[in-house]
Amino acid sequence: MNHIAAGKAGNASGESVGGQQRRVEEDLTARVLASFETCTDPRLKQLMQSLTRHLHAFIRDVRLTEAEWEAAIGFLTAAGHITDDKRQEFVLLSDVLGASMQTIAVNNEAQGNATEATVFGPFFVEDAPAIPIGGDIAGGAAGQPCWFEGTVTDAAGTPVPNARIEIWEADEGGFYDVQYADARIAGRGHLHSDAQGNYAFWGLTPTPYPIPHDGPVGKMLESVGRSPVRAAHLHFMVTAPGLRTLVTHIFVEGDPQLEIGDSVFGVKESLIKGFTEQPAGTPAPDGRDLGTAAWARTRFDIVLAPGEA
Amino acid sequence: MNHIAAGKAGNASGESVGGQQRRVEEDLTARVLASFETCTDPRLKQLMQSLTRHLHAFIRDVRLTEAEWEAAIGFLTAAGHITDDKRQEFVLLSDVLGASMQTIAVNNEAQGNATEATVFGPFFVEDAPAIPIGGDIAGGAAGQPCWFEGTVTDAAGTPVPNARIEIWEADEGGFYDVQYADARIAGRGHLHSDAQGNYAFWGLTPTPYPIPHDGPVGKMLESVGRSPVRAAHLHFMVTAPGLRTLVTHIFVEGDPQLEIGDSVFGVKESLIKGFTEQPAGTPAPDGRDLGTAAWARTRFDIVLAPGEA
Repeated sequence: MNHIAAGKAGNASGESVGGQQRRVEEDLTARVLASFETCTDPRLKQLMQSLTRHLHAFIRDVRLTEAEWEAAIGFLTAAGHITDDKRQEFVLLSDVLGASMQTIAVNNEAQGNATEATVFGPFFVEDAPAIPIGGDIAGGAAGQPCWFEGTVTDAAGTPVPNARIEIWEADEGGFYDVQYADARIAGRGHLHSDAQGNYAFWGLTPTPYPIPHDGPVGKMLESVGRSPVRAAHLHFMVTAPGLRTLVTHIFVEGDPQLEIGDSVFGVKESLIKGFTEQPAGTPAPDGRDLGTAAWARTRFDIVLAPGEA
Repeated sequence: MNHIAAGKAGNASGESVGGQQRRVEEDLTARVLASFETCTDPRLKQLMQSLTRHLHAFIRDVRLTEAEWEAAIGFLTAAGHITDDKRQEFVLLSDVLGASMQTIAVNNEAQGNATEATVFGPFFVEDAPAIPIGGDIAGGAAGQPCWFEGTVTDAAGTPVPNARIEIWEADEGGFYDVQYADARIAGRGHLHSDAQGNYAFWGLTPTPYPIPHDGPVGKMLESVGRSPVRAAHLHFMVTAPGLRTLVTHIFVEGDPQLEIGDSVFGVKESLIKGFTEQPAGTPAPDGRDLGTAAWARTRFDIVLAPGEA
């Protein structure tokens, strides 16, 4: 995989640059790097100098034209202007470039059998409603009822009681509650694992949906022929004292979007779970009356790595 | 200057990553690169894949934390929100990271004795007033009067008649007209070289000024201990049929900011010009009555490279 090393990213045009021109370009980069030598915060200095190196290397590798530079400024400006309290185009941009997942990867190194992390996404909301074990997060959102259950343990298999489990998902139309015109709360909540580390709740069987694609990021995806659709998933964030906070999803085995590709690169094999269809009339685990609705059930056993909550 | 090659940009933490973790990170980058394989525009595909390589390499090299990722999203959001018709924070960001100058460098390779290019900046305005040769661009802006004169030739020394010369500069308070509260036009204009390629005009002796630094870019510069001040300069854009358009400045010999460093890395030795102080009462070249004002004069001979206007 050496071709991924940035130093090998030069294209033919970048490599054909003559000696004098190369010196002009390298001297400029060196001057910018030197300008950060005044920085007294060593980490900030490292970040700005590395950013400078990679940004300059990108411009030099592709021989960025002035028109392309202007297009980039225009793109960032449009992304800034569509961004507000409810729409975060820069997060979408980071997501579709895989930068969000790479940041997750760097910060959540695999630890034995601990459950893998994936993207946080822009739709989490603080203070989602508390539900009891076996409660329902749907809040009236449309979709097929689905029973989720599992355990929370540490890496040694010891049950983690009272872990806080935040869950959120889109409705079957592909919308999170924060995308509704009204202020309804739906498709989100939190609960705590019981004394044996068990949890269970009712939600909706996840369905694929596009990320918001009526802005500059959507236009970029269209230009390059990429789908804005995310593989069907439900979000989890699990916290417990003395254990590494887990931000993840579960995905739906058999979802065709898993083959097409998740638009934000969030899929990991270990997070794909079987969702078993239950014909109408099948008794629910908690005796709930589902009338004539078919429903589904799945299991997700969560293993938290050691670390800080 | 090998340390500038992006492939060498890895820091100790980045290089200490174990094999399994490295594979996870490289596989992710490979998946994002593959997602652009659908792109039918080969240049766009090249740009997006190179951007992906460098962005991922940056995140991996510095082991970007999730809090730092959030700060970056917050920075871009703030830059987007302060940007409007008159304020362009993304251009400032590109400027202070040297990305604007690197783009200029890549697109304006040195050609023999042709005048060197530098940053365009955010303060150019279309349709600035026409002035005759020897006319005045100050338009009432405060500052010391200065006589600018020179020739426009091609690389062989042949005069270029009727070249369009756009000039713009800040007043002695450091403000361009577009930064004034009213809609006055001042410190800008355009003229054409005469039949012998000569030009001359009155303007103001340039003085150093800070780029707008009350936004996220200014805060960043402050955090790293960098000055927002630009070395004193006057902008030129020179166009003539069959010759490469020149976007450049001239700088003022002896300006202390040349030592401190220009905040956007625009300075080139060849663009630093002597500005000769003329005591009050010294007759002006065009016989203009300057009263009791001291004034200055400078010379800038412009050589246009072959190319497209």
